[in-house]
Amino acid sequence: MSPLAPDPGLVEKLAIANRILFQKSVVDGFGHVSVRHDKSPEHFLLARNMAPALVTRDDIVTFDLNGNAIDGAGRRVYLERFIHGEIYRARPDVHSIVHSHSPSVIPFGVTGQPLRPIFHMSGFLGEGAALFEIREVAGDTDMLISDSRLGVALAAALGARSTVLMRGHGSTVVGASIEQAVYRAIYAEVNAKLQIQAMTLGEITYLNSQEAAKAAAINDTQLARTWELWLREIGTIE
Amino acid sequence: MSPLAPDPGLVEKLAIANRILFQKSVVDGFGHVSVRHDKSPEHFLLARNMAPALVTRDDIVTFDLNGNAIDGAGRRVYLERFIHGEIYRARPDVHSIVHSHSPSVIPFGVTGQPLRPIFHMSGFLGEGAALFEIREVAGDTDMLISDSRLGVALAAALGARSTVLMRGHGSTVVGASIEQAVYRAIYAEVNAKLQIQAMTLGEITYLNSQEAAKAAAINDTQLARTWELWLREIGTIE
Amino acid sequence: MSPLAPDPGLVEKLAIANRILFQKSVVDGFGHVSVRHDKSPEHFLLARNMAPALVTRDDIVTFDLNGNAIDGAGRRVYLERFIHGEIYRARPDVHSIVHSHSPSVIPFGVTGQPLRPIFHMSGFLGEGAALFEIREVAGDTDMLISDSRLGVALAAALGARSTVLMRGHGSTVVGASIEQAVYRAIYAEVNAKLQIQAMTLGEITYLNSQEAAKAAAINDTQLARTWELWLREIGTIE
Amino acid sequence: MSPLAPDPGLVEKLAIANRILFQKSVVDGFGHVSVRHDKSPEHFLLARNMAPALVTRDDIVTFDLNGNAIDGAGRRVYLERFIHGEIYRARPDVHSIVHSHSPSVIPFGVTGQPLRPIFHMSGFLGEGAALFEIREVAGDTDMLISDSRLGVALAAALGARSTVLMRGHGSTVVGASIEQAVYRAIYAEVNAKLQIQAMTLGEITYLNSQEAAKAAAINDTQLARTWELWLREIGTIE
Repeated sequence: MSPLAPDPGLVEKLAIANRILFQKSVVDGFGHVSVRHDKSPEHFLLARNMAPALVTRDDIVTFDLNGNAIDGAGRRVYLERFIHGEIYRARPDVHSIVHSHSPSVIPFGVTGQPLRPIFHMSGFLGEGAALFEIREVAGDTDMLISDSRLGVALAAALGARSTVLMRGHGSTVVGASIEQAVYRAIYAEVNAKLQIQAMTLGEITYLNSQEAAKAAAINDTQLARTWELWLREIGTIE
Repeated sequence: MSPLAPDPGLVEKLAIANRILFQKSVVDGFGHVSVRHDKSPEHFLLARNMAPALVTRDDIVTFDLNGNAIDGAGRRVYLERFIHGEIYRARPDVHSIVHSHSPSVIPFGVTGQPLRPIFHMSGFLGEGAALFEIREVAGDTDMLISDSRLGVALAAALGARSTVLMRGHGSTVVGASIEQAVYRAIYAEVNAKLQIQAMTLGEITYLNSQEAAKAAAINDTQLARTWELWLREIGTIE
Repeated sequence: MSPLAPDPGLVEKLAIANRILFQKSVVDGFGHVSVRHDKSPEHFLLARNMAPALVTRDDIVTFDLNGNAIDGAGRRVYLERFIHGEIYRARPDVHSIVHSHSPSVIPFGVTGQPLRPIFHMSGFLGEGAALFEIREVAGDTDMLISDSRLGVALAAALGARSTVLMRGHGSTVVGASIEQAVYRAIYAEVNAKLQIQAMTLGEITYLNSQEAAKAAAINDTQLARTWELWLREIGTIE
Repeated sequence: MSPLAPDPGLVEKLAIANRILFQKSVVDGFGHVSVRHDKSPEHFLLARNMAPALVTRDDIVTFDLNGNAIDGAGRRVYLERFIHGEIYRARPDVHSIVHSHSPSVIPFGVTGQPLRPIFHMSGFLGEGAALFEIREVAGDTDMLISDSRLGVALAAALGARSTVLMRGHGSTVVGASIEQAVYRAIYAEVNAKLQIQAMTLGEITYLNSQEAAKAAAINDTQLARTWELWLREIGTIE
């Protein structure tokens, strides 16, 4: 094992996270989840270019923060690995990142409507998600975060928040652990769906910032409960 | 068996209720269902702190109305067991309680839009669900019913109704039996979804109070039919 | 076998129809489907009082048009069997009837919004579904068609159409065969869902009456295609 | 093998495409997918008249561009095979065509609301889908493309685009390969669903034509990823 060999348990947990995010419809054939390397804060783990639902331990590749695969062995890599590298560089508190096209979140990014915490499960949304408009930094593109410069701009838009909406593309959610990032990605989607429906009924009383912070703190003590459920739901993976 | 050992059939039915509520998407990793103890009106049965979908007979704990586990054996308990204790104290007619974040119901609680019976299956909604605003009794909180004082306030908001919406949180539904509480929790969700859709079409003619009362009475004679179906749908539980 | 013993193939097809309607979410624990007796136009076949998803051949009971079970053998029967009896009496062309609380159709009945054919698959909706308001004939009730008088009123509201919306309750769809009634019940639900969504986008160009009639006629030549699929989807039944 | 025997791998892929489109709810009991013949641009492959979910290799029939089955062997054929023949004739760049009643797309066709690319996954929508109003070319019909004249008119409405909405009927999507046509049909549905939701939130910033073209180009390099997933999801076919 090389000095930079990651904890096998972390690699397995990352494969599981891929499966959970698919089972919960946060990702489809596209989207990805990474974790910061347990032995080097300058590296992260991410699957090779493939559908998240099919990821196994053997598909996990180690990258440096510039998005270079250090054990790629010629495997195709995700075009948007720069999302991960640049957020890990900008945010030392972040240890896991989910990028997805989570369906109910898309309408917020394309209309500029704020995504805000409608209930205690999404206290992590705080005073709302950030919004990234790629046109402002790069004009007319293919919408992808396909290099470090765009990754830096996305990380800047994210700032200190948990969630950034990407106009015409999707969203990126960060956390202090795989469990937390996966939880947040799932409940960002749930919150978005609820918010769209509630907006048709009348004016919404969102959690205020105090409520959001307190709810987020207490919910973080319950992460093991949902992880245990989601693990059971995906069944064994090869 | 201790003098307070509950009927094993009741314990099994409570485990089943957990599974049914998950299968019907009323609960996800969160939410809980309880039943009043068959040998003591001053006690109730509730699972330990875990995802409802995974509850087995062995996970059922006995609590007193203050929310103290009397056979907890060190197991973690739900933070919001006070919902159950205080409603059982305030409402002798209630023998089962479902607390959930049932998705279509959330939009009503956060907008103050009344949840009303749109069809005969939800006659139990009577002239509408009650609404609980935690800010009015406790200011900025983590939104949870985390002590007896908040439980008392929630029970007061519920009053004599079957359902109370909890702003920024979820809802709580009560019944005279597990079957009835589960039925009501499922059809509160169905009613909410229908009502949201119908409100986009025009002004709704709801069941009036006479219709609601009569429909609720006749539907209660049919509870065994749905229970038999739901039991079949969840399959055998370990 | 008694002189009135129905064709075993018809009994089996009726059991299958129950399963299909559940698999397609037209019925849940409630709702029912009947067929006119193949040997007597004055009788019809309908399951005993139970969830449609669980119906087997042995659960099929023969009724006369007044709603009396002639081979009930003490089994509980549906409270609303009068829907079937009175429509068969009023409409000699009808050979199968589906009564359901099909979810997307409910919003039309409670708002009086016309349910109209949005695409060729629902040409059977013609110039729109009929609407039945039980208050007009019986004041404040439990909403059920619980006797022959109410069945007669419902049949009168249906008139010569294929579909009648029942305010605060559900809908009833008729056909010349089990296959056609099941098809219509499924596509009434599909049409309703599409129509609700389309109404949020702008003014809808519905099929006009010529288009609806022509589309209905051509679709009736394709009923075997969907029946074969639905049969495969439910799998074998005990 | 006759001189015009198609590549067995292509036949199998077409059977798979049928299954995928059903699994993704783009088709139900109706709808069809074809591929241009690999040995003759004047012919195409299409299943016999049946539900797409049940199609096997043996159900694939070869047609000429006039819609004549050349190896039909008496099997019933789709009434709307002229959609395929006339588009293949008009568009040499097209090698696969999906016709469906994909649910979220229907509301656009019946209201004339433009279907436009809301995110990079649907860059193929370019500046919007085309719209076909059958009344303009044939008056009151059964809505079907049931002869070559109607097929020609539909192909003319499609023009150089990837997608044409058919008022009161469905839509047709074309591609340069089975993988691309299936991808587009699936993401046309996804885009439509997102667009309906986003329109309730506010004014949408769509991909502009430059963004759409660039996104479509880059996504075409990722088609194998989704195909691999979808293949896994349908399981083995008989």
